[in-house]
Amino acid sequence: MTELVLPQHSNALGTAFGGTILAWMDIAAAICAQRHAGCIAVTAAIDDVAFLSPIRVGDIVVLTARVNAVFRTSLEIDVAVYVEDAVRGIRRHCAEALLTFVAIDSTGKPVEVPPLLLETEEDRRRFEEALNRREARLAKRAGTKPPKT
Amino acid sequence: MTELVLPQHSNALGTAFGGTILAWMDIAAAICAQRHAGCIAVTAAIDDVAFLSPIRVGDIVVLTARVNAVFRTSLEIDVAVYVEDAVRGIRRHCAEALLTFVAIDSTGKPVEVPPLLLETEEDRRRFEEALNRREARLAKRAGTKPPKT
Amino acid sequence: MTELVLPQHSNALGTAFGGTILAWMDIAAAICAQRHAGCIAVTAAIDDVAFLSPIRVGDIVVLTARVNAVFRTSLEIDVAVYVEDAVRGIRRHCAEALLTFVAIDSTGKPVEVPPLLLETEEDRRRFEEALNRREARLAKRAGTKPPKT
Amino acid sequence: MTELVLPQHSNALGTAFGGTILAWMDIAAAICAQRHAGCIAVTAAIDDVAFLSPIRVGDIVVLTARVNAVFRTSLEIDVAVYVEDAVRGIRRHCAEALLTFVAIDSTGKPVEVPPLLLETEEDRRRFEEALNRREARLAKRAGTKPPKT
Amino acid sequence: MTELVLPQHSNALGTAFGGTILAWMDIAAAICAQRHAGCIAVTAAIDDVAFLSPIRVGDIVVLTARVNAVFRTSLEIDVAVYVEDAVRGIRRHCAEALLTFVAIDSTGKPVEVPPLLLETEEDRRRFEEALNRREARLAKRAGTKPPKT
Amino acid sequence: MTELVLPQHSNALGTAFGGTILAWMDIAAAICAQRHAGCIAVTAAIDDVAFLSPIRVGDIVVLTARVNAVFRTSLEIDVAVYVEDAVRGIRRHCAEALLTFVAIDSTGKPVEVPPLLLETEEDRRRFEEALNRREARLAKRAGTKPPKT
Repeated sequence: MTELVLPQHSNALGTAFGGTILAWMDIAAAICAQRHAGCIAVTAAIDDVAFLSPIRVGDIVVLTARVNAVFRTSLEIDVAVYVEDAVRGIRRHCAEALLTFVAIDSTGKPVEVPPLLLETEEDRRRFEEALNRREARLAKRAGTKPPKT
Repeated sequence: MTELVLPQHSNALGTAFGGTILAWMDIAAAICAQRHAGCIAVTAAIDDVAFLSPIRVGDIVVLTARVNAVFRTSLEIDVAVYVEDAVRGIRRHCAEALLTFVAIDSTGKPVEVPPLLLETEEDRRRFEEALNRREARLAKRAGTKPPKT
Repeated sequence: MTELVLPQHSNALGTAFGGTILAWMDIAAAICAQRHAGCIAVTAAIDDVAFLSPIRVGDIVVLTARVNAVFRTSLEIDVAVYVEDAVRGIRRHCAEALLTFVAIDSTGKPVEVPPLLLETEEDRRRFEEALNRREARLAKRAGTKPPKT
Repeated sequence: MTELVLPQHSNALGTAFGGTILAWMDIAAAICAQRHAGCIAVTAAIDDVAFLSPIRVGDIVVLTARVNAVFRTSLEIDVAVYVEDAVRGIRRHCAEALLTFVAIDSTGKPVEVPPLLLETEEDRRRFEEALNRREARLAKRAGTKPPKT
Repeated sequence: MTELVLPQHSNALGTAFGGTILAWMDIAAAICAQRHAGCIAVTAAIDDVAFLSPIRVGDIVVLTARVNAVFRTSLEIDVAVYVEDAVRGIRRHCAEALLTFVAIDSTGKPVEVPPLLLETEEDRRRFEEALNRREARLAKRAGTKPPKT
Repeated sequence: MTELVLPQHSNALGTAFGGTILAWMDIAAAICAQRHAGCIAVTAAIDDVAFLSPIRVGDIVVLTARVNAVFRTSLEIDVAVYVEDAVRGIRRHCAEALLTFVAIDSTGKPVEVPPLLLETEEDRRRFEEALNRREARLAKRAGTKPPKT
């Protein structure tokens, strides 16, 4: 996914507004999740979002997304955001995030997702790390009382 | 911060698009950070974003933000998103997130933030947890090689 | 309701575009009207909109709304717009308006609104003034022929 | 000024959101004010906004604006909003408003506006009414204490 | 159709973004097509779009649209875009385009459009040119194989 | 470039609004032109835009762009728009267009663009066709008087 940063995406500093980058990461990950799942997928959780360097108006932004892991009805997607320097032909790494989606049918009920083929050592490492994050998240949520309003 | 969900905020399912909620959470946290810091603050990291229940077009959305912890030039902000049921006078908890901001001056250089007064047991617990997350994040980043493009 | 002024909200002068402020006032008043009425409310009339001082990109804008008066199926809402100076902890009054909403059911038919409890002298004064404005408006509309196209 | 109502302009009821109509009225009046003044003009006040009938997604909206009166550095503009029924060739009157603009130079200082030629009886009546509104507004503002925050 | 160029319409150079001008031309032509056809019309083709001179933030943009030709269920619309210099009372020609619309009923099926009355020499010349373009387009499309993905 | 069609991109029929597709094609082509030219490039002309089949809310849209030809300071870019059917793994061809950009430096002056390497028969055919279109366009513009306002 590629985007051109326009003034409507900027904050008072002339750099891309964080909320815009987050919205683009959410779309890039949703498309990736829906391609793997073959159905609609909605955002359930986001972790480890890091903004590494500022993005300016006029920059060409490239977002890459890949499936880290598939659990029964959910997927963890890794999104990276780069700014492309067209003149020197290099990409600067600007932001990254891990997004978890749940695959749903047309009535909103979760549906099973085809498993992910783990072929390389890198694939297996990414899956292991995603599994650990998922278990930590479930453990934490189990031990949390709902916040008071 | 209060928002009314309009069709321009929705996805193909008629519920609020994840990217819109993320953008609102970023603004609510930025305002909270800038109020405490007394200067501009930019998003550096986001963790533990959870979408707990769907938000529909026409819903009144209320976002609350509070400072969990202040480190030298950064702040961790806790944002919670509620949908308000005007008829029955109740709020449904829909999403939450932890956002880390860095306070900067007009040249973009980080500046020191006034410390946070920890008055109650709850204040101290929130600070401890934020500190743990910060150390885990710094440890992880130290051990990570930058991704290849 | 709190908003952060972004470049997408500005005019060619770098200040917030009047139409954006009006849209925010309409949303703040609609939320206030729906909270009191317990149902959907649509804008019927607006009076006494005053823009008192300019709002700049980067400003934190705070909108407050309160019910001035409830008539059978309509409500008059008073909205005030402030810019918050985070550094000095003060608010500058920037705009204000009086908006009249009609409460409707799901078929678009007007429905009765619970009466407003008038507790203080200030409450009664606000109600009296709203009543006078309403009578002046109805009298004027009765005496007006529809404009020719 | 003519606009086509798209879903991005609508509220949860499928009709045009009040804030969108207000923004269009502000733009139509600003263009009219700048044409007469020959310089930039900013919104200072709005009165007598009436929403007379709902506007739906897909409707063609026509806005007309004319100068009612010119005071030294300000102008009152009358805006009317119509929905055009292309099939039957008629226009339905949907909203109207009176907007007051101040003409400014590039430093933001008010500048004098060329006087308005009053040619017909109708022109003079419109000017008289605008003058009465202006005096009532100035009298009211003089007698008002600023609201407490 | 008249529009005021705001920062949300601009690119990194401070001029109106090409995509915004295209969207305005599409709306102006759609309104013109629907007025003539008396029903909904959707864009089928666009030709000869020329951007002749840049449009800046703060400019008043005027779009004019007229029907060049009516074929059985389609219409060719000529759109011209001008920037208006309010001070000197002149218009600068900035862009133009030819848009072809198909008139459809509520089920999306093409419907016949009332013929265009050709009264002047200019009317007949415009119709002839549109007819030539249409034949060239149909000939080209007949000879084209669909692109491979 | 990949986009997810949201309700904010739709028209009253629930399909993607033509203006939105045009804006996406303009961005995809601008990115392609800037990558080849190594500097900013602005839209100068658009031809042969064809909308072949409707695009619906919820669809994943893929835009591809390639350089057809480079002239001294301008480039012709071919953009194709596909809707991706994630379930069946196929792409439906929905729209196409030819966009001409001019490469400019930071002062807005046209600059020379590196020539395009023509390697295959297909490359040469595309270049020839672009050259013919360019000559036809220049010939037509030379013979046209500017439109009267």
